[in-house]
Amino acid sequence: MRGLLAVVWKNSLRKKPPLRTRFLHTLKDRQCSQILMSPPLVSVDLPDIWTPNSSSFGGSSIVKTFDEQTTVVLDGKMISTEIRSRIASEVRRMKKCIGKVPGLAVIVVGQRRDSQIYVRNKITACEEAGIKSFVTELPTDCTEAEVQNALLRFNKDPSIHGILVQLPLPQHLDEGKVLDVLCLEKDVDGFHPLNMGNLAIRGKAPLFIPCTPKGCIELLIRSGVEIMGKKAVVIGRSNIVGLPTSLLLQRHHATVTVVHAFTDNPEQITSEADILVSAAGVPNMVRDNWIKPGAVVIDVGTSPVEDPSCEDGYRLIGDVCYEEAVKVASLITPVPGGVGPMTVAMLLSNTLDSAKRILDFT
Amino acid sequence: MRGLLAVVWKNSLRKKPPLRTRFLHTLKDRQCSQILMSPPLVSVDLPDIWTPNSSSFGGSSIVKTFDEQTTVVLDGKMISTEIRSRIASEVRRMKKCIGKVPGLAVIVVGQRRDSQIYVRNKITACEEAGIKSFVTELPTDCTEAEVQNALLRFNKDPSIHGILVQLPLPQHLDEGKVLDVLCLEKDVDGFHPLNMGNLAIRGKAPLFIPCTPKGCIELLIRSGVEIMGKKAVVIGRSNIVGLPTSLLLQRHHATVTVVHAFTDNPEQITSEADILVSAAGVPNMVRDNWIKPGAVVIDVGTSPVEDPSCEDGYRLIGDVCYEEAVKVASLITPVPGGVGPMTVAMLLSNTLDSAKRILDFT
Repeated sequence: MRGLLAVVWKNSLRKKPPLRTRFLHTLKDRQCSQILMSPPLVSVDLPDIWTPNSSSFGGSSIVKTFDEQTTVVLDGKMISTEIRSRIASEVRRMKKCIGKVPGLAVIVVGQRRDSQIYVRNKITACEEAGIKSFVTELPTDCTEAEVQNALLRFNKDPSIHGILVQLPLPQHLDEGKVLDVLCLEKDVDGFHPLNMGNLAIRGKAPLFIPCTPKGCIELLIRSGVEIMGKKAVVIGRSNIVGLPTSLLLQRHHATVTVVHAFTDNPEQITSEADILVSAAGVPNMVRDNWIKPGAVVIDVGTSPVEDPSCEDGYRLIGDVCYEEAVKVASLITPVPGGVGPMTVAMLLSNTLDSAKRILDFT
Repeated sequence: MRGLLAVVWKNSLRKKPPLRTRFLHTLKDRQCSQILMSPPLVSVDLPDIWTPNSSSFGGSSIVKTFDEQTTVVLDGKMISTEIRSRIASEVRRMKKCIGKVPGLAVIVVGQRRDSQIYVRNKITACEEAGIKSFVTELPTDCTEAEVQNALLRFNKDPSIHGILVQLPLPQHLDEGKVLDVLCLEKDVDGFHPLNMGNLAIRGKAPLFIPCTPKGCIELLIRSGVEIMGKKAVVIGRSNIVGLPTSLLLQRHHATVTVVHAFTDNPEQITSEADILVSAAGVPNMVRDNWIKPGAVVIDVGTSPVEDPSCEDGYRLIGDVCYEEAVKVASLITPVPGGVGPMTVAMLLSNTLDSAKRILDFT
């Protein structure tokens, strides 16, 4: 694990509350045969037993050791490479056993440069993992019916086990109406309302957990961050990141607050968070005074900024002012190379899970 | 409105942050013809426009006038009576126009005294509103299939527009499996995962909002409490109250934190809430030090405690220590007579809405 983390030495010896924990070895041992370390959601559901006579309400102990001199920079690229390699090996096993491989279909509408690049990355990742991929490109001015028809064709195609519509769609298209026709069993992005409801409801399990939130939790678990009993703050309440991330953190027993554009003095709230997940899409919004010393900071923001020196003509900027945050946080994800690669790995993981379920392969 | 509120004069002149607002007259004028004042969910969805250069993130102004000398005790019984009377009038209009009335079916399993009383109250309320009601009582040891069969019969019955299964069910029955067969169009309790997903997702609207959370929001709106931009804390994360209440408050643009049994020092979090909704089911858990001076306190807890002097042999105790809270809060709901009657009124409202939708009556 150490090899997966870049360690930044701090000059400051500022007092930080203990937070990051070492690996839970029992968990590691139990799950070493799995591709992901995140346990199934229903298995993490625990009964709420209130103990009202104490000021502390049960839950796990918060006191953990933490090395004050280091900030861990999580290398999402390396972790995702490891996960993708395990997925590739599982795909080979599937091909060998039943002669079939998972298939992912992507529908992309218009010429948004960021969407084009995201789709290209997903397709490349599929190819590397042995997952068959299919892309339907539609013009910006296409109709809702055209997108729906493309979806319906993929719904029926037995060689396709996962379908995603690259968002955002052009403004004249109603995302909800488009996604409503997507076959629930192939909704590898997990955006269907039924999936979201089952993510929210304890005792239920969605068929798919949305990729970015799933990647965030996987990063936390792989880094030995204990979620249960922690104060978690999610910045942003988008349907595709903020909302499902908050629901997922709550399923893992964090005390979750969602901060959004109507929140007054958000930094007062975020600076009390043990785990801070930022998904606002506002470059460098999260400054050092937004962060509790020793907090775990997951930066989901990826705002493209023009930069001719970069291969694609632009570079991605996170929500978190990295230079400041790295001096305060105990663990941080960089942008790029943090959550982004994990999103792609989780998409492959969901597609593999879907193919296994549909093909009844274990 | 003044007639609906009991006012308690305080001895203390303690400084309270301003919170409760007077009626928004434009809202009142616009909605006076409606039974409920809560606007449709999709209409309250606003785009999140971040203004990261300011420490305040837009939203509404928090500074409001508040009369320091009073605590408003909300009379949920009186408010719900007014709502039920308007529902009754709407049912009469329906009968006159199309010769049909809404129908509600209730399935109750076993002999839990509290369930029996809740069901009786619901049936009485239906009768008073002119809504036809049907009750199926099943023995404690019945099977999942028997409950499902009862549900399926009501699903098919065109005279039934709303169905509810009185919870909790005996432990040997899987609530999720039972509720899964409930026809979505008749799920007046709003517990179906698809309803919950659509409650969570901005831009979507569930067919039904769960009754207790809907009643809480209706109380807030009728009392002129502004939700947008406020810090709201929900104690408890049950699928039927805590979860949907937190989702609903977020749809109304509050900054929501959910406190549960794994939260350390919950009183530190609750004492920062402008709006505190307690749904833990632990009698008198919320003491004065849990409440921010001037906060709005909604007590959803109803724990039955033996009391031979009461008609039913027991009385209901809330989560909130009323005697202490009434000295700190600016607005509080009593138990009984606060949220409870609103839940019943919202059930009738959902049943009426369902009948109108199914019968295409406007």
